[in-house]
Amino acid sequence: MNYFEKSLKVHEDKVGKIEVISKIKVETRDDLSIAYTPGVAEPCRKIHEDEENVYKYTSKGNLVAVVTDGSAVLGLGDIGPKAGLPVMEGKSILFKEFAGVDAFPICIDTKDVDEIVKTVKLIAPGFGGINIEDIGAPRCFEVEERLKKELDIPVFHDDQHGTAIVVLAGLINALKVVKKEIENIKVVVNGAGAAGTAITKLLLSSGVKNLIVCDKVGIIYRGIENVDNSKLELAEITNPDNIKGSLADALVDADVFIGVSAPGIVSKDMVKSMNKDSIFFAMANPTPEIMPDEAKEAGARVIGTGRSDFPNQVNNVLAFPGIFRGALDVRAKEINEEMKIAAAYAIASMIKDEDLNENNVIPYALDRTVANNVAEAIKKAAIESGVARI
Amino acid sequence: MNYFEKSLKVHEDKVGKIEVISKIKVETRDDLSIAYTPGVAEPCRKIHEDEENVYKYTSKGNLVAVVTDGSAVLGLGDIGPKAGLPVMEGKSILFKEFAGVDAFPICIDTKDVDEIVKTVKLIAPGFGGINIEDIGAPRCFEVEERLKKELDIPVFHDDQHGTAIVVLAGLINALKVVKKEIENIKVVVNGAGAAGTAITKLLLSSGVKNLIVCDKVGIIYRGIENVDNSKLELAEITNPDNIKGSLADALVDADVFIGVSAPGIVSKDMVKSMNKDSIFFAMANPTPEIMPDEAKEAGARVIGTGRSDFPNQVNNVLAFPGIFRGALDVRAKEINEEMKIAAAYAIASMIKDEDLNENNVIPYALDRTVANNVAEAIKKAAIESGVARI
Repeated sequence: MNYFEKSLKVHEDKVGKIEVISKIKVETRDDLSIAYTPGVAEPCRKIHEDEENVYKYTSKGNLVAVVTDGSAVLGLGDIGPKAGLPVMEGKSILFKEFAGVDAFPICIDTKDVDEIVKTVKLIAPGFGGINIEDIGAPRCFEVEERLKKELDIPVFHDDQHGTAIVVLAGLINALKVVKKEIENIKVVVNGAGAAGTAITKLLLSSGVKNLIVCDKVGIIYRGIENVDNSKLELAEITNPDNIKGSLADALVDADVFIGVSAPGIVSKDMVKSMNKDSIFFAMANPTPEIMPDEAKEAGARVIGTGRSDFPNQVNNVLAFPGIFRGALDVRAKEINEEMKIAAAYAIASMIKDEDLNENNVIPYALDRTVANNVAEAIKKAAIESGVARI
Repeated sequence: MNYFEKSLKVHEDKVGKIEVISKIKVETRDDLSIAYTPGVAEPCRKIHEDEENVYKYTSKGNLVAVVTDGSAVLGLGDIGPKAGLPVMEGKSILFKEFAGVDAFPICIDTKDVDEIVKTVKLIAPGFGGINIEDIGAPRCFEVEERLKKELDIPVFHDDQHGTAIVVLAGLINALKVVKKEIENIKVVVNGAGAAGTAITKLLLSSGVKNLIVCDKVGIIYRGIENVDNSKLELAEITNPDNIKGSLADALVDADVFIGVSAPGIVSKDMVKSMNKDSIFFAMANPTPEIMPDEAKEAGARVIGTGRSDFPNQVNNVLAFPGIFRGALDVRAKEINEEMKIAAAYAIASMIKDEDLNENNVIPYALDRTVANNVAEAIKKAAIESGVARI
């Protein structure tokens, strides 16, 4: 059986992947009087007296809603909230398994931004954080921005920032391998959706000066027409020389390629036109923008993909569990740039200098020690940037 | 320590009562490929092909949302969605402990009926059923009615129907003890909120002919003014002789008193004015409408309360776990009158005729065999009434 068949069987045998259990036993009359009436009235009263007590007496502080509208699920696209549920359950169990965070899927039956925002706000009292998942661009940007503004709990769109953080972690280590400085490199990001946009912004926050974003329309530049607002914004902050042209034009003399685009769209000639010791993150799924062996032949030095069967897998599971663990632990109001950069450095630091090489710039996705390290870094950065509440 | 202190300590030690765990292990790369990408794409595709497959490959079919706006929590009143959370978590664990149903609290930050209905509809894709909890009357009636109409999964307001079902179960057995027929009795229901309204309707569906509802304004009658619509509706279906007056007037020659009202409002004289072998369910919490010993002295024969320290405790935990277990198992579209009556008879039948006496008309709340019996009755009634989908 292949993974698809195995997965189908496991999902059917277990009838889904999550269950909600009690942390306390309810066997005797006394148990019932403590867990439920009449005793339960007392924690209720304490929370009514002071709302912050909700973190003390309920599960809220450890609970993350995994929110989707099912409009951009994996490589499957707009399959709707019910069909997206297996992914949201999968995400939920990864939160628990990797960082002890309780997470619960909330699949929303609308693609209207106002309705999504309203719904999440209205159910927020029971959650300590919101993880947005698989909502299509550009709607995801507005959903995230508005929820961040309107809620006092951390809101994080993993498809954007989780990916960006792991890419930055890989880049930090790859630059050590090729001995280049982040300030001096030329980066090309191909794909201006959720992930590409977040990667671009995080790299700029992290010291990259020369970054060009390409999309289906080619290079994004100031003055470009017929694109949505999120791309106009990208044009404002990238492409310092405001060049125009195709992806091939952008790649000439580039040091880093970051693809969150489509299978096979990069040729060996394009890789050859890049600078020496180029770094290549080809994350189109399941088939990368160029296969690692071809990229290598054409001169790329460090190559990462989204796949577990090649070296340097960019896997968000390295980021999101520890990020929420840390954010929940200090009751962070938000997950800000400082925290994201700290998370990337924490992931990068998992590989000791002596173990660092072109096939080992990103830690193993299932390394259980990563989440804790990320959580510690997140807590520190949250405290230092003034968004921690405890 | 009393229950309140103990409860506070347990809630604080455990930081809430629920957690969300994985049904499958995620330890190896293979596990990850099955639970999450790439394997998870296959159940997603199957659900996208046929939405009904969501019951086959996800946890939806066993998941109940415990929905509140925190406006009528226990005896505490309108304490808001956060302060209501300990009760919703308590309810959720009872679902799991008594019937294996996964339940999750959804505390909604609005008291606007349209917004509550809209929110629940939008998050319904991930749930197999909706349990409405502690939403104040009369808003709870509209919320329930609209959700029942607009959703294809069972919607159940436990404060109404759970209570009504257990009261009916107790009444069925109590009538056997006093050897009266349900068609011939005169019943007085005191309290016309969520529970009182549902009890009234369920008793009428079950054969009671002469039933009078009282509220703070006294007896509810056709022609009454300055009351909300739900009470005008009650006036239409109750009080066949259309008498007016106080609770004391209503109780003269009554066979059954059902109080979901306020502590101590029934006097011994009022009990004395009732028929011989009267049945008394005094469920005001924590102090009944009249204390059982006083009711007994005044001539009541069978007495039930909401408390676990007196005989015949009316406790909803006898009903809701088994009701949802049964409804989910046959994927019932709704929970209809036939199913509620069947549940009441199933609960009543747990006490064998030889064990039946005035101090034993309702089974012990923690009897683990009740839920299964209720579930079987619910399934049968759902199939027979044509609302089962499998």
